[in-house]
Amino acid sequence: MRKLFVILLLAACWLTAGAQAEVERWGRFEASFKADVKGNPFDVALTATFSGPDTTFTVRGFYDGDGIYKVRFMPVKQGRWTYKTSSAVAALDGREGSFTCVAPGKDNHGPVTTDGTYDFKYADGKRYYPVGTTSYDWMHAGGDYPARTIRSLDKAGFNKVRMLLVVQNFDFGYPEPALYPFELKKKSRGEDGKTHFEWDYTRFNPEYFDHVERCIDSLAAIGVEADLVLFHPYDDGRWDFDKMPMDVNLRYAAYVTARLGAFRNVWWSLANEYDFMRHLTIADWDSITRTVDEGDPYGHLLSIHSHTAKYYKYWEPVYTHASVQDQAPVEDFGRAAIVRNIYKKPVIFDEVLYEGNMRNRWGSLSGEEMLHRMWQGLVAGTYVTHGECYQDSPTDYVRDFLAVGGEFQGEAWKRIKFMRSVLDAMPGPMQLSDSSWDPYTSSAGENYYIVYLGKRISHEWTFDLPVKNGPYPRLKEGQKFKVEILDTWNMTVTQYPDTFETTAPVGDRVYDKHHGKVRLPCLPYLLLRITKAE
Amino acid sequence: MRKLFVILLLAACWLTAGAQAEVERWGRFEASFKADVKGNPFDVALTATFSGPDTTFTVRGFYDGDGIYKVRFMPVKQGRWTYKTSSAVAALDGREGSFTCVAPGKDNHGPVTTDGTYDFKYADGKRYYPVGTTSYDWMHAGGDYPARTIRSLDKAGFNKVRMLLVVQNFDFGYPEPALYPFELKKKSRGEDGKTHFEWDYTRFNPEYFDHVERCIDSLAAIGVEADLVLFHPYDDGRWDFDKMPMDVNLRYAAYVTARLGAFRNVWWSLANEYDFMRHLTIADWDSITRTVDEGDPYGHLLSIHSHTAKYYKYWEPVYTHASVQDQAPVEDFGRAAIVRNIYKKPVIFDEVLYEGNMRNRWGSLSGEEMLHRMWQGLVAGTYVTHGECYQDSPTDYVRDFLAVGGEFQGEAWKRIKFMRSVLDAMPGPMQLSDSSWDPYTSSAGENYYIVYLGKRISHEWTFDLPVKNGPYPRLKEGQKFKVEILDTWNMTVTQYPDTFETTAPVGDRVYDKHHGKVRLPCLPYLLLRITKAE
Repeated sequence: MRKLFVILLLAACWLTAGAQAEVERWGRFEASFKADVKGNPFDVALTATFSGPDTTFTVRGFYDGDGIYKVRFMPVKQGRWTYKTSSAVAALDGREGSFTCVAPGKDNHGPVTTDGTYDFKYADGKRYYPVGTTSYDWMHAGGDYPARTIRSLDKAGFNKVRMLLVVQNFDFGYPEPALYPFELKKKSRGEDGKTHFEWDYTRFNPEYFDHVERCIDSLAAIGVEADLVLFHPYDDGRWDFDKMPMDVNLRYAAYVTARLGAFRNVWWSLANEYDFMRHLTIADWDSITRTVDEGDPYGHLLSIHSHTAKYYKYWEPVYTHASVQDQAPVEDFGRAAIVRNIYKKPVIFDEVLYEGNMRNRWGSLSGEEMLHRMWQGLVAGTYVTHGECYQDSPTDYVRDFLAVGGEFQGEAWKRIKFMRSVLDAMPGPMQLSDSSWDPYTSSAGENYYIVYLGKRISHEWTFDLPVKNGPYPRLKEGQKFKVEILDTWNMTVTQYPDTFETTAPVGDRVYDKHHGKVRLPCLPYLLLRITKAE
Repeated sequence: MRKLFVILLLAACWLTAGAQAEVERWGRFEASFKADVKGNPFDVALTATFSGPDTTFTVRGFYDGDGIYKVRFMPVKQGRWTYKTSSAVAALDGREGSFTCVAPGKDNHGPVTTDGTYDFKYADGKRYYPVGTTSYDWMHAGGDYPARTIRSLDKAGFNKVRMLLVVQNFDFGYPEPALYPFELKKKSRGEDGKTHFEWDYTRFNPEYFDHVERCIDSLAAIGVEADLVLFHPYDDGRWDFDKMPMDVNLRYAAYVTARLGAFRNVWWSLANEYDFMRHLTIADWDSITRTVDEGDPYGHLLSIHSHTAKYYKYWEPVYTHASVQDQAPVEDFGRAAIVRNIYKKPVIFDEVLYEGNMRNRWGSLSGEEMLHRMWQGLVAGTYVTHGECYQDSPTDYVRDFLAVGGEFQGEAWKRIKFMRSVLDAMPGPMQLSDSSWDPYTSSAGENYYIVYLGKRISHEWTFDLPVKNGPYPRLKEGQKFKVEILDTWNMTVTQYPDTFETTAPVGDRVYDKHHGKVRLPCLPYLLLRITKAE
């Protein structure tokens, strides 16, 4: 496992090598400059303007410690790029250079962006269906957790991980991280027996961010998007990272975007459960949003996440998608599409409760229920994030993937590759064929239907489809279909032997001319894939 | 029936008598001025500024035909009010007067306004739970339909009716109305055998609006709010009222608000299925919204309505509530609250399909299903509008309340007074006690729970409540409760003999200390009212 991580880190290092002559498209150019300045080097303003084929970007640089300032850039077009820096510090001003942006490597499809109203794609046009999981502190857990987590994500086939940029405090027994984002001024033991930290919020810890960056590059190397949560409320008086003043929050947001904006697999998640950081107002979040948005000339995906069913103003143009915490929309049919219909943006249900054995009500889903909720969201044209939290005791996080990563312990993760294979086989993303009239049937292309049966257990399914097929041509008479029975839990695909031929529409439905039915195995979580018969 | 309508019209006439010395609070003051002008009298701009206790309103006047210009005003505070007109026409300029606003009459609670985030109230503070129905053309159907409709609404106990200001064309056999909103320039029979109308869009027909106003006053007299739909797409080439140019639309919106703004029971519904008026853009609707909003200094409720599941940008401050067309949210538990949670405004599901015997899929609910959907929405803290459409043949609208009013034919309407009695007995509006965790249990006050069982048929209900009781204090141990079994269909209230006493919280629920259960009659549509036992 360590070996894999080393290889990935080497790959990552290659991505971040010094001022390069060639950089692949959506790769990362980095230039370093030495300067001695008086005062706090983190206060130095440095920007660089990159000019390339028909386009110009201005990015912020940042101080990386040891007298080194850096600018990073992700070229979005192939061809020759030149740059020039600007700073009040002479040694950092007017520094120029150039490089050539070459074709992207085989597994580099660029950053993920929105596609149409409800979906995602890579910058090179390849479809991207987010099938993510959650591991808040895998970067911070220390030891070989990062390497083991990368390996687990790769093995399971997830393509996104929701993770915290700053470590959280599950409880006071939670392991102390080796690194912190800020310079430590003082550490003392209080009268309460707890360690008290005093931070210099004007000085970041480059070593901390360097570690984070290696982790993010390791994710890129296995094709996983880093849904990076910048703020969270789970500190509970341990380090007070959830109670920083607004000027520190904005300084931090600016530093983070300067460092990480050029990483193609970064998504900005402004917060986890933002509404539990009760000292911050919506106006404060607007400021944080603006700072991140302004610091990112590439337009990485950007959202924010709230406590259960609180729902944010995702309709504002700056938010690229809705990152929702609410289990209700994916617990049963007919719900998730409501959220999509209202926001008219891609919707990711980033917390719908987790698979696990916890005693609380949010971490105790069965694997079946976790997987079912994911499919439930998918057939409605939304996306659902996985998470699992198994513990040997209530304060033992060693096996808790949600907390520290490591190895998955549960059952749902084993079905993720199968899920992705079903998604990848579709001509396009799913959406309800006839929204609000039929919550079970989804369209993924012309004459391409998905019927998810969920928990219904039946020995047969009558061939019965809506005439309406989402945005695709309506179903016509005399169309021949085959049906495959997919068992989403047991991961089997069974081609049903009969072929079906559509009647003329009867009201808003069509049936098989010979009243055909599909015999089913009387199991839950079946999905019917109904496609044109040749 | 005619007698009732005559009485109501007399009452209405009293409301609109000439320049009065006394006007009750939220009543209507009207002043008339004679002027001879050159050109189109509808082009004359006239405003009047009313100054009363601590407040000033400027309202637009309007031309009412026969050389008469009028200004109308709804005084919102008791005390002395003076007014002064302003116009480029000398005879209409600087006209002054005064009146005294006295206490409102017994049944005058003022206009309905929003209350908190999710609910409504009258201006005098009395609670208002919208329990509305739909009758698009009752004002336009002619004969004794208006009088019969008023009588039916009163008998059923509805307190809102959704209705079209301009007649629609269900089909070409639909009766021709006696009056039109615009002056008719020319009527001719086309080569297609159909009558073609040519309108002078610069001239309104005061007689038309006078009739509408009498109808709205008749509603006020029986305590029904007029949810007045200004535009709709259902013309199908008959009169082309759905295809007027934008300047006409805005002129019409301004005229309508000038005439009707002072009617306390008017709600503005900008459109029915706005998105089917395909020549209008969102920018056009923004203009219409602005015109209505600017023409109404009182801030009457304002919304807009779209085709199924299209969902509008109700988050914009100008919209007071969401007027949604979508059946999905009220077809089952756990859905309606999602819409409420996202918009953070009062939600009225103004079309969830209708009770009726039509062959289409939108007009064929049973009465049971219609009523169930209304309760389904109510327990989730939203509101649902009734409608019914029974026909003897597909083009016979004589019995179709949805179209022409008259008498209700179905079953759900008979249960409306019972529904309202349950609502009126509550200390406050309902909302889910523990949203997203329990879709069945609603809170309406401290220690006041409503559990709606919907279609579940069971012989017993185990006493089992969420600790969380919406915004009210959490449920404590040792609290004594009584349970009433309400049959929403058969309209019975049965006090269950046992008293229950709460355990300490077990997780997020409390139970009865003696594991008590309520025996149920094995019927659907039961509602349990669980309140503090004395």
